[in-house]
Amino acid sequence: MEQQMENRQVIFKGFIDRAPRETDMELKVGSIGGGLKAPPGSGAFLVKNLCLSCDPYMRGRMRDSRASYIPPFVPGQPIEGSGVSKVIDSDDPDFKPGDLVSGLTGWEEYSLVRKTDQLPNQLRKIEQHDVPLSYHLGLLGMPGFTAYVGLHEICSLKQGDTVLVSAASGAVGQLVGQLAKLHGCYVVGSAGSRQKVDLLKSQLGFDDAFVYKEEPDLDAALKRYFPQGIDIYFDNVGGDMLDAALLNMCVGGRIAVCGMVSQHSQTDPQGIHNLFNLISKRIRMQGFLQSDYLHLFPLFFNQVLKYYKQGKITYVEDVAQGLEHAPAAFVGLFSGRNVGKQVIHVANP
Amino acid sequence: MEQQMENRQVIFKGFIDRAPRETDMELKVGSIGGGLKAPPGSGAFLVKNLCLSCDPYMRGRMRDSRASYIPPFVPGQPIEGSGVSKVIDSDDPDFKPGDLVSGLTGWEEYSLVRKTDQLPNQLRKIEQHDVPLSYHLGLLGMPGFTAYVGLHEICSLKQGDTVLVSAASGAVGQLVGQLAKLHGCYVVGSAGSRQKVDLLKSQLGFDDAFVYKEEPDLDAALKRYFPQGIDIYFDNVGGDMLDAALLNMCVGGRIAVCGMVSQHSQTDPQGIHNLFNLISKRIRMQGFLQSDYLHLFPLFFNQVLKYYKQGKITYVEDVAQGLEHAPAAFVGLFSGRNVGKQVIHVANP
Repeated sequence: MEQQMENRQVIFKGFIDRAPRETDMELKVGSIGGGLKAPPGSGAFLVKNLCLSCDPYMRGRMRDSRASYIPPFVPGQPIEGSGVSKVIDSDDPDFKPGDLVSGLTGWEEYSLVRKTDQLPNQLRKIEQHDVPLSYHLGLLGMPGFTAYVGLHEICSLKQGDTVLVSAASGAVGQLVGQLAKLHGCYVVGSAGSRQKVDLLKSQLGFDDAFVYKEEPDLDAALKRYFPQGIDIYFDNVGGDMLDAALLNMCVGGRIAVCGMVSQHSQTDPQGIHNLFNLISKRIRMQGFLQSDYLHLFPLFFNQVLKYYKQGKITYVEDVAQGLEHAPAAFVGLFSGRNVGKQVIHVANP
Repeated sequence: MEQQMENRQVIFKGFIDRAPRETDMELKVGSIGGGLKAPPGSGAFLVKNLCLSCDPYMRGRMRDSRASYIPPFVPGQPIEGSGVSKVIDSDDPDFKPGDLVSGLTGWEEYSLVRKTDQLPNQLRKIEQHDVPLSYHLGLLGMPGFTAYVGLHEICSLKQGDTVLVSAASGAVGQLVGQLAKLHGCYVVGSAGSRQKVDLLKSQLGFDDAFVYKEEPDLDAALKRYFPQGIDIYFDNVGGDMLDAALLNMCVGGRIAVCGMVSQHSQTDPQGIHNLFNLISKRIRMQGFLQSDYLHLFPLFFNQVLKYYKQGKITYVEDVAQGLEHAPAAFVGLFSGRNVGKQVIHVANP
């Protein structure tokens, strides 16, 4: 008789059109058959999940929309996201038991992973043993690569630029700021709390930072921090901050539209009123997805790894312990509860 | 005694923050001294103005704002704009009596023009005698060059693109559509009346066109004309059309933000709600001014002149006869009263 093992899972309950709540997910004890073996002939491999990533884009997969760039979650199935996992058994000649991998996996203890379900370069064997494993979900993963692509490919970062980053202590923002500083830029971050602002200034090397919630007039705040105007706005939030930034861009300014976390849960998103500045200031405003630039991933990876090993880059994580805390960790992203990149620690290797 | 000549002028009365009205300008009989001579040592030349250009950007110069890319008009002085003029007398060795020039001039019968008050390449001697003079204000002038720069430099026009143009029968729009057609694109224009739509389809070679005012649902209209989506939106209007276009862009789409005529006179411009599409569709949205690309002007001029002489391009003008009709002609731009490029015929050479 086939051996069944318990497999705790975080199940996606059903589509929503509002901010995610913990009750949109359910912790369930499922089971996994086959004695933790990858089915022969499947070409798949079975992993034990070690840590999982909470990313704002996942909220889009909770909407019943086929129009998005990524298909929605399947109700009744585990949440899907980036994770670092250890191969337990494999029917794929490229992966062997004991290998550590980062790639798309399920929010559960064990997952069966198929190489063919992953984007090119998105499933990677982890060869570095002197970097925290969870960094492959942040600093060295999709969020870090998003910062790199946004600055270099979208914003044409150059020495001396003045740079504004919103959600600056988040998974993407903290690397945006540090990379820009390493390129000789003046960098100011906005964040949602004093604690985050202190972090930006004392640990992450930002020139300055402010709590957007404490600014009654964001336009005035930006004029204070950027008396000469903003060359680059790395926009992780949309909404009021984008509108205020538009008023303060320099001629030839660039805006990377990376996330609109302030607008994610609104069915009628807030209007942006100051786009006429695009003309008078000749601003280039561009949305992007890191997945369109995967050919640059190795370049990014090696450069940022080097900076990290040289002690030139710091990365702050907010680690939730245990799969049972995954729903709360995910929901917390949308109220800014996390300080730094939100990950979930599921198991030790 | 110095000979004084009458010089009828259209005077700018004072700054406004709303749509322009005829009463914001005043026809006045001024005078010009010196016997229609350029003052010796002035380096200037005296011209007789033949035709003047009405352009929407001029509305920005009626606002008391030094923050704009171009200084405001001077109250009590004539309106300033592009014109075609004939040199009467000259203290500038580069210009001789009888020369025809296009460049910045005043809304008056005679103007004293200084080369040094003009942008490079903006003051040009007219050498072509087989093209209507007023075309140097439209097809072969700033509006035509705006179409060229927007399509090639901003939107990276390529064969097979699907192209939406708003204000499509206007000074810029009609050339956008025709250039895109000459590059093998599918082109649809929006305009404000049946007459304009007929013009676009029957004379200007657009694949299709529609009256935006007759569409209760612009999103639905765009889905009808662009079932596969829009690659390029050449935006001359902003507002609702921009919002609807954002919903219908293809992945990798490009939006040239060229004018926001629908928003010019609003102190609190309308909000744009669909910018989240910039991310999911990886859209590049860029404002621009033709004056940043003047090094390309000769390239544009020769190419469009060739197309015109080959009969491949048509240009529709709306000509107001006489300086006294200039205020009404200008004001009409903002309600879309003009059909084609609005010019004012002041005098024959």
